[in-house]
Amino acid sequence: MRYFKKLIIILLLSVTQLAHADDGYRLWLKFDLVANIQQRNSYAQKCQFIYSDNQEVITKTAQKELQAGLSGLLGKKILILTNPAGKKGGIILQVIQNEQTNQLAEDGFSIREENQNIVIRSRTASGVLYGSFAFLRQLQSGSSIAQINITDSPKIKYRMLNHWDNPLGTIERGYAGSSLWKWYELPEVIDQRYIDYARANASIGINAVVLNNVNASARFLTKEYIVKVKALADVFRPYGIKVFLSLNFAAPKLLGGAKNSDPMAPEVRNWWKNVTKEIYAAIPDFGGYLVKANSEGEPGPQDFGRTHADGANMLAEAVAPYKGIVIWRAFVYAADPKGDRFKEAYKDFKPLDGTFASNVLVQVKNGPIDFQSREPFHPLFGAMPKTPLAMEFQLTQEYLGFSTNLVYEAPLFKECLESDTYSNGKGSTVAKIVDGSIDNHSLTAIAGVANTGSDRNWTGHLMSQANWYAFGRLAWNHSLSSEQIASEWIKVSLTQEPKAVATIQDLMMKSREIYVDFTTPLGLHHVMGQNIHFGPEPWLEKSARPDWTAIYYHRADSVGLGFDRTAQGSNALGLYAKEVQTQWGNPDTCPLPYLLWFHHVSWNKKLSSGKTLWNEFSSRYYAGVQSVEWMQKQWNSVQSSIDPQIFADVSGRLAAQHREALNWRDACVLYFQQYSKQAIPAPYQAPSRTLDEMKEIVRIYQLK
Amino acid sequence: MRYFKKLIIILLLSVTQLAHADDGYRLWLKFDLVANIQQRNSYAQKCQFIYSDNQEVITKTAQKELQAGLSGLLGKKILILTNPAGKKGGIILQVIQNEQTNQLAEDGFSIREENQNIVIRSRTASGVLYGSFAFLRQLQSGSSIAQINITDSPKIKYRMLNHWDNPLGTIERGYAGSSLWKWYELPEVIDQRYIDYARANASIGINAVVLNNVNASARFLTKEYIVKVKALADVFRPYGIKVFLSLNFAAPKLLGGAKNSDPMAPEVRNWWKNVTKEIYAAIPDFGGYLVKANSEGEPGPQDFGRTHADGANMLAEAVAPYKGIVIWRAFVYAADPKGDRFKEAYKDFKPLDGTFASNVLVQVKNGPIDFQSREPFHPLFGAMPKTPLAMEFQLTQEYLGFSTNLVYEAPLFKECLESDTYSNGKGSTVAKIVDGSIDNHSLTAIAGVANTGSDRNWTGHLMSQANWYAFGRLAWNHSLSSEQIASEWIKVSLTQEPKAVATIQDLMMKSREIYVDFTTPLGLHHVMGQNIHFGPEPWLEKSARPDWTAIYYHRADSVGLGFDRTAQGSNALGLYAKEVQTQWGNPDTCPLPYLLWFHHVSWNKKLSSGKTLWNEFSSRYYAGVQSVEWMQKQWNSVQSSIDPQIFADVSGRLAAQHREALNWRDACVLYFQQYSKQAIPAPYQAPSRTLDEMKEIVRIYQLK
Repeated sequence: MRYFKKLIIILLLSVTQLAHADDGYRLWLKFDLVANIQQRNSYAQKCQFIYSDNQEVITKTAQKELQAGLSGLLGKKILILTNPAGKKGGIILQVIQNEQTNQLAEDGFSIREENQNIVIRSRTASGVLYGSFAFLRQLQSGSSIAQINITDSPKIKYRMLNHWDNPLGTIERGYAGSSLWKWYELPEVIDQRYIDYARANASIGINAVVLNNVNASARFLTKEYIVKVKALADVFRPYGIKVFLSLNFAAPKLLGGAKNSDPMAPEVRNWWKNVTKEIYAAIPDFGGYLVKANSEGEPGPQDFGRTHADGANMLAEAVAPYKGIVIWRAFVYAADPKGDRFKEAYKDFKPLDGTFASNVLVQVKNGPIDFQSREPFHPLFGAMPKTPLAMEFQLTQEYLGFSTNLVYEAPLFKECLESDTYSNGKGSTVAKIVDGSIDNHSLTAIAGVANTGSDRNWTGHLMSQANWYAFGRLAWNHSLSSEQIASEWIKVSLTQEPKAVATIQDLMMKSREIYVDFTTPLGLHHVMGQNIHFGPEPWLEKSARPDWTAIYYHRADSVGLGFDRTAQGSNALGLYAKEVQTQWGNPDTCPLPYLLWFHHVSWNKKLSSGKTLWNEFSSRYYAGVQSVEWMQKQWNSVQSSIDPQIFADVSGRLAAQHREALNWRDACVLYFQQYSKQAIPAPYQAPSRTLDEMKEIVRIYQLK
Repeated sequence: MRYFKKLIIILLLSVTQLAHADDGYRLWLKFDLVANIQQRNSYAQKCQFIYSDNQEVITKTAQKELQAGLSGLLGKKILILTNPAGKKGGIILQVIQNEQTNQLAEDGFSIREENQNIVIRSRTASGVLYGSFAFLRQLQSGSSIAQINITDSPKIKYRMLNHWDNPLGTIERGYAGSSLWKWYELPEVIDQRYIDYARANASIGINAVVLNNVNASARFLTKEYIVKVKALADVFRPYGIKVFLSLNFAAPKLLGGAKNSDPMAPEVRNWWKNVTKEIYAAIPDFGGYLVKANSEGEPGPQDFGRTHADGANMLAEAVAPYKGIVIWRAFVYAADPKGDRFKEAYKDFKPLDGTFASNVLVQVKNGPIDFQSREPFHPLFGAMPKTPLAMEFQLTQEYLGFSTNLVYEAPLFKECLESDTYSNGKGSTVAKIVDGSIDNHSLTAIAGVANTGSDRNWTGHLMSQANWYAFGRLAWNHSLSSEQIASEWIKVSLTQEPKAVATIQDLMMKSREIYVDFTTPLGLHHVMGQNIHFGPEPWLEKSARPDWTAIYYHRADSVGLGFDRTAQGSNALGLYAKEVQTQWGNPDTCPLPYLLWFHHVSWNKKLSSGKTLWNEFSSRYYAGVQSVEWMQKQWNSVQSSIDPQIFADVSGRLAAQHREALNWRDACVLYFQQYSKQAIPAPYQAPSRTLDEMKEIVRIYQLK
């Protein structure tokens, strides 16, 4: 007994240290002991063992994950049986094709109580894995599993993360440390994080990963690197995740000694076939290629007078024998000082509709410019019915305050997905374009530019874990609400205390609008600091390209503010369906969030809010800063329900966000005040700092 | 009882997970329960409480560290008493100036049993902190503390890490992830790693840190960044660590709007005084500045026709009122295709001896070129008796195989420190120049370019933790042997099993020579891949500067190999004392490790080994690869004594090292064989790969 007591003290010391310092590494896969003993017992009764007769490696993963999760939640080791011999009270995993599973989409699953066992069933092993994680989530979030009966199917086939990770370990637009992939150490060293990364993805249904930056190094196509990529693919395969590579279109010349990389040249086409064969020899389930071509200096088929379709189809031919796919990015824009960047991708791609091979997707960013805090949906959605379009969202907060700003992105994603393109009549939402239901495409994909890095908590800002989570959940089922996903995430990641859940959910739901208010209200866009994209720089007049400045977009003058994209202006509005044009085309009725995207509005124009443009616009900055203070207060109110280390970390970041919000506010109101020539509206007070001081603060962050 | 049993199972589950997955984060500060119960009890008897009447913050740190360490080692909470009231069997920390402590250097300490208490005593609180860690190390390594009587003093005043960390989070020549410093998040967010970093440094006596890259951004001198630097200084202060900044010499122009940055211009001198005043207002114990000037494109006083001393003395004047110091780097070299880079720093700095202000140190790299795997000691050591010279070692493995090669660096450091400069007669070792004893300097410093990063285990290669540790221990006491430090580190970091300790120590001790053998044997140098410095590239003939190529250094031709630096050649040898010249000047007696540093040697010359140059040289590559295989075997033999995660990680890295060693071997023997025109000597076989294949492999790692 004495020995036991001593042992307990020793063990308590270790565990207490653990419990009081949650560094966020475990993400939403915590599986801490269920605190409510009654509930724990009721779970335990139904989770006495795990069994499957399916021998696929992914099913074995599901069993292991269930075992680890349940053992943590229930505080005792749950056995995986090799023969259940009529036992009851366990969990059975079934991979089976039958009448019931045929109702499900590929990788869909059901979870039901049958004959006093809980049966997780799918046509595929991946489906069983997703079902297992869904089941664990019920227990994690404290839901009842009595008479459980869940059926769920993914709406989109490829649910992908795109990593903009460079071969030497930096991440383009990454704010959470360095790359997860240690290319020098591969293939020999397998970092535990590779496995935990795969677990996290599988748990939310992500099934595809592009490992390297779209500004791609050709090195990934060499023997030297294929063995490294294979090592990662081998780690991810048991979690149902396929590996893709971004490629450098000039690789045949760069690597192969070909004269050039013309997609119509037989030697080039052969080169790609050979390289592709080598990759598939190493990685039989390799997913395919992602391509950024003729964009921002990257090579592409236009270098040889060919079209994007020529380039994509050449690659499609190379991967077709292996059932691979090609994802071709539509993010292209020529440098035309007289033009409107808004229209560039449409101009290049719309005419190519119907010319792409059947295993090609065109990947389109959610908006026409570049992941601004708010954009109208991209006009290509609905404009290319013969081509499957993949959605590209950005999880990493390039324009959303890096890792110091709390911005829950699900409302941004939803806003786009629910936008109506009217391409096939009312209800032709972007979501239905992407999931293939409007235009009958079975090849469908959605991509998130990853926000992961080597930071211990994966995403820098702990609350940004919710964006990774939300992306996965929406990629699976875009009809989930932002509220629902937030609530789910909070319960498995932060707390189940009802008041705290409600408070944090409310704060998350408002966070993106708050960020918009203190940075780019009313549809202002692209006024961030140049190159690094940190902080405000509305005064940016010169850059390597006119469409990299701020003035190109905001067009402030003594009359007013905003980019006229009506027929009187660039007529970018004309790219949308008539119904959309009607919504957004009239400055009197255009919703305020989109106003400055489409109209040059007089400073004195009375808006639907009852205030003039200047008053509404400048007030938003002040209200935004106040809302950050509100977020700080709300966060403080949940302190007792949150792990202390997580609480302190998020508190610190909210304080940093407040400092940055003040910078945005002062810089922007002072800058635009030069044009409006009007006072800051009451009750707000003019900034105590000068515009020159604000310029200097921004400049400091751009010094070498 | 039943409850206890259940609890134990639950706790064991957690702790077992912990115990079986050592991710290396805790470094040498593990403080796991002492397994031998008898020994634990004997320790516990003498460690029943902790007490100090000293109220300094650093003494409080010592108490807390003792408490945490002892509680872990002994498995029970050890109390910090506010009044020991005559109690015995405890640990007393005394900060006191008396006859005994006056014998110690500043920050020296004694640990003795007195009146049945263990008294850790020093003149300073920092000394008590170092003594506390030294005491903990005794317990960690299983040493007896009966009649403990230890006295120890540091030989060098500033024991520094230099971080080549950039403001956006990358690290120049870093191979362990991104920077520890999250500048965007500071000052609001205090990462737990900042604290653990400080703990690790303090535990080995490191007391100064330069936070930013010597290729410095001026931003660190702005108000915006000073508050960030202050936040780190506030974290480090309780651990006795002072913060320094690298500065950009052009800052007055870049930041202040000064016409230029001429150190003789009154406005420039005032600018520096004002900035320095601001820094000290925020950080009263700020250490001072580190400067890389007129080197590799950085600005400096020579831009205005001034000397390095002019620049250094201007800054010295600015920091002098606050007892700050200036550390001026001697790493300068003009691009002279006809010259010898070996001589450049000497040429610039030797004439300035005696002209530097009294609070200036000149920081000199260990060798004359740039941290090669072996260099002769820098000729400036011993050549500037009127100037305190700081030693600059490189911990990060820029030229030592990044984070995939196991290279224990203590033998490299010791080789340099024990080199005899003969500057003041025999025994004028580099160590005695650096510690000030030869030339009577009380201002002394030694710097290590840090190998730390955001990787969970801090240093990428777990075994590289030993290099951080060894640097700290040698900075404190350069007379410690490499063997002793290795053994100490192994016991507190890996295992105390005697056979495993001996095996790993042996492997570590040989590791650097093995690396030299398969990369640059016999004094070959600077033949690594350009820019990234990865892998071999002896064929590099053209670069932005001639002294950035490989052929500039190896001078291979049909006659032989090596750089003639005798009087017949560049006469760099003439920079050394006569005795050194005698040692190295004759190719017949020059020690083989330095041979090609100083002589162009005929391929057929018979060496002291009995082999011809070609046979010895090419054999070394083969022997080096075989030795890596030997390291793998040795490591495998200790598997049962090592944590499984650490074992697997190091095993993987050794396998990667083997692959890289084969690349070095094949590339170098094939390349130099073109000149020797001789066969690979028996029993070795010619590589199965061609030189072109080797060139392609190296090129792949240099692609965009």
